[in-house]
Amino acid sequence: MPTPVPLLAANAGALVELEARITGALPEIERWFRLQWQDHTPPFYGSVDVRNAGFKLAPVDMNLFPGGFNNLSEDQLPCAVQAAQSAIERLCPDARQLLLIPERHTRNQFYLMNVARLTRILRQTGLVVRLGSLSDEITAPTTLDLPNGEQLVLEPLVRQNGRVGVEGFDPCAVLLNNDLSAGIPDILRGLSDQVVVPPLQAGWAVRKKSVHFAAYDEVAADFARVVGMDPWLINPYFARCGQIDFHERVGEDCLASKVDRLLQQIAAKYKEYGITDQPYVVVKADAGTYGMGVMTVKDAAEVKNLNRKQRNKMAVVKEGLQVSDVLIQEGVPTVEHVDGGAAEPVVYMMDRYVVGGFYRVHTGRGVDENLNAPGMHFAPMPFAGSCNLPECGARGEAGANRLYAFGVVARLALLAASLELERTVELAADKVEA
Amino acid sequence: MPTPVPLLAANAGALVELEARITGALPEIERWFRLQWQDHTPPFYGSVDVRNAGFKLAPVDMNLFPGGFNNLSEDQLPCAVQAAQSAIERLCPDARQLLLIPERHTRNQFYLMNVARLTRILRQTGLVVRLGSLSDEITAPTTLDLPNGEQLVLEPLVRQNGRVGVEGFDPCAVLLNNDLSAGIPDILRGLSDQVVVPPLQAGWAVRKKSVHFAAYDEVAADFARVVGMDPWLINPYFARCGQIDFHERVGEDCLASKVDRLLQQIAAKYKEYGITDQPYVVVKADAGTYGMGVMTVKDAAEVKNLNRKQRNKMAVVKEGLQVSDVLIQEGVPTVEHVDGGAAEPVVYMMDRYVVGGFYRVHTGRGVDENLNAPGMHFAPMPFAGSCNLPECGARGEAGANRLYAFGVVARLALLAASLELERTVELAADKVEA
Repeated sequence: MPTPVPLLAANAGALVELEARITGALPEIERWFRLQWQDHTPPFYGSVDVRNAGFKLAPVDMNLFPGGFNNLSEDQLPCAVQAAQSAIERLCPDARQLLLIPERHTRNQFYLMNVARLTRILRQTGLVVRLGSLSDEITAPTTLDLPNGEQLVLEPLVRQNGRVGVEGFDPCAVLLNNDLSAGIPDILRGLSDQVVVPPLQAGWAVRKKSVHFAAYDEVAADFARVVGMDPWLINPYFARCGQIDFHERVGEDCLASKVDRLLQQIAAKYKEYGITDQPYVVVKADAGTYGMGVMTVKDAAEVKNLNRKQRNKMAVVKEGLQVSDVLIQEGVPTVEHVDGGAAEPVVYMMDRYVVGGFYRVHTGRGVDENLNAPGMHFAPMPFAGSCNLPECGARGEAGANRLYAFGVVARLALLAASLELERTVELAADKVEA
Repeated sequence: MPTPVPLLAANAGALVELEARITGALPEIERWFRLQWQDHTPPFYGSVDVRNAGFKLAPVDMNLFPGGFNNLSEDQLPCAVQAAQSAIERLCPDARQLLLIPERHTRNQFYLMNVARLTRILRQTGLVVRLGSLSDEITAPTTLDLPNGEQLVLEPLVRQNGRVGVEGFDPCAVLLNNDLSAGIPDILRGLSDQVVVPPLQAGWAVRKKSVHFAAYDEVAADFARVVGMDPWLINPYFARCGQIDFHERVGEDCLASKVDRLLQQIAAKYKEYGITDQPYVVVKADAGTYGMGVMTVKDAAEVKNLNRKQRNKMAVVKEGLQVSDVLIQEGVPTVEHVDGGAAEPVVYMMDRYVVGGFYRVHTGRGVDENLNAPGMHFAPMPFAGSCNLPECGARGEAGANRLYAFGVVARLALLAASLELERTVELAADKVEA
């Protein structure tokens, strides 16, 4: 068996009914996914934060520029390579060369380990991969040493004849591992004959979580019909407010009234299912990432009485992106605990395949808090098994079944991302040309 | 780490130059395979017996009805499920139900474990799988207990309205795990709207090893050009004789002269590469399997002086199939040793992916003998790693690189099988209708 077994710890207290229902419907589920992927193109890759409340299992965030490939275990790599082969075939079957554009920050060793891991996976599919940096600091090929003894070479991007690459390297495709929070850089606009994945509209300069979750609503409803279940069990309620200005206290009323309505909707569902937890919502920036601009709210009054510090925190996310639109999402408490810390699974996918995942464990945070936050207590724990080997009707194999259920929910979010990207193509064109 | 590590033992004495050359050409190789699979449809599944002579690494047998899925390790299953998903998508994306037709013999526990493992892999892709038997003994649903506590239910085949299934089960596709050595059964002829994979011409009633290896000649030549190497390093010489009758001693001259010519060709290559081994050839039935009708020959005179026992052994293979055509194949000695026994790797593939493999170890046999033979000393040892994670330029990682090289050679044979099946479609139609 691979590395640690967080599931054993996490099993305690979790309801298995939902898992059993999902595992029991495996034939219908897999066939449904097969048919969906006939009609929709999966994103190149993605990761999904899943929250398991026991009574409910739902995605709360879908990342199209996954940054934690280094947290997967070695055991998960063969399937990742296999899935990457499939993704490459779809992207550009005669590809020889791929340009990978990572995040700008070159001092986050964990992130750089992710880039190294991702590069390794892509190289094993046969691609020659080079790293082009958007950072102003990278003006010449720069070798970075990683904690594990590996090295990465970052090179400055070069634009020539409408194509982007690095010195002496003209790739057929560009893979973004940079979420474009800082906006779409000119050097990537209007490329000729080069595929960019994920597409530019997937970047946080354009993408809105609310558009994703609107697509997820449809996917979840469709899926729930197939399985014969209440879609709420896999889908958090959400609402959004636009034109918020936290500094100027503009939009507080909209926020408060939507928070209030959502809390009431959740309370009604809790009553229907006999759940005694206190409902809460999570307010977060509609665009952007990294756990900044995230707030847990249990009463609408809270959002009307934010102090300066709280407002500052909500007003800006990564790369100084101003928050004007917010997403209000039903809070899904986690029943998962690993090593005494609240934990949430993060599922990694390439093409249409689940390739692995890990538990994000945060000993300093509560079960109803956002765990994607910086802190000393963050520890990734790789899944101790595969997400595609459930044991139908098996006892004592809850671990495998739970991982399968995580994978199903993550794939639903992946499918929603696929719909989302189809629908935002024009939006991207507007913003990209502008 | 998974189960045993036969590679460490096997490393001793093997040349790594060939492996290094293959690993070093990974980008070209993977791109070439991607393009090949654009033009050719991979078989649903297959296994390849690879022989590693150190100076040479070559497939000696390509099985389109692989029977040892139970010999893969548990660690290899996630990738097998993922590959099976891909195979199913290609076969029949909206499939719900699949009929699996195993071999007739219901008393070979090892084979039945293979069927159980294969069934499990297919079920995890979401298919409802039932087992239809060609055996006359199965006249009603029959539950078989397996050594590991699992059970299998074999059901009699039912033909209705031009479709085959089992009682109350009308599958969209039929997967053969029966190599049809006994001929193409009427119940499978002329089916309407049901896909049968592998196609009927892949069965040993029609298939000829010499057709496969002729296709392999082309594949190996093409591949060798891409990598820049002598194709002989991955390709055994072969010849064939038809209209042999071992009982009546008809065709001995043809056999002797071709054996002689082949031994000379091998000797010339051995001289070119400074190899001091004694050349030998393997004479085997051009159709059929199971290590019957196989003979190691070091001198042409040997095939002219067969005693009655030897002639009887050569004259008949599985299911009483008479041998009239023989394949004379360059013998590739094995340098692989596991636990003191001569070993040869067997690589398993589904769709175009290598999903795992194991060492066939035979302590009672020599390095120049056929190891696919019954005997107390046969022991499967699963590969201790994945075939798709080579370490370019790494030392001490020869295991991973060797597994990658095995996988490459096996995929070459898989591609040859794909060409072979394309070319024998008409042949099958003739024999199927006849």
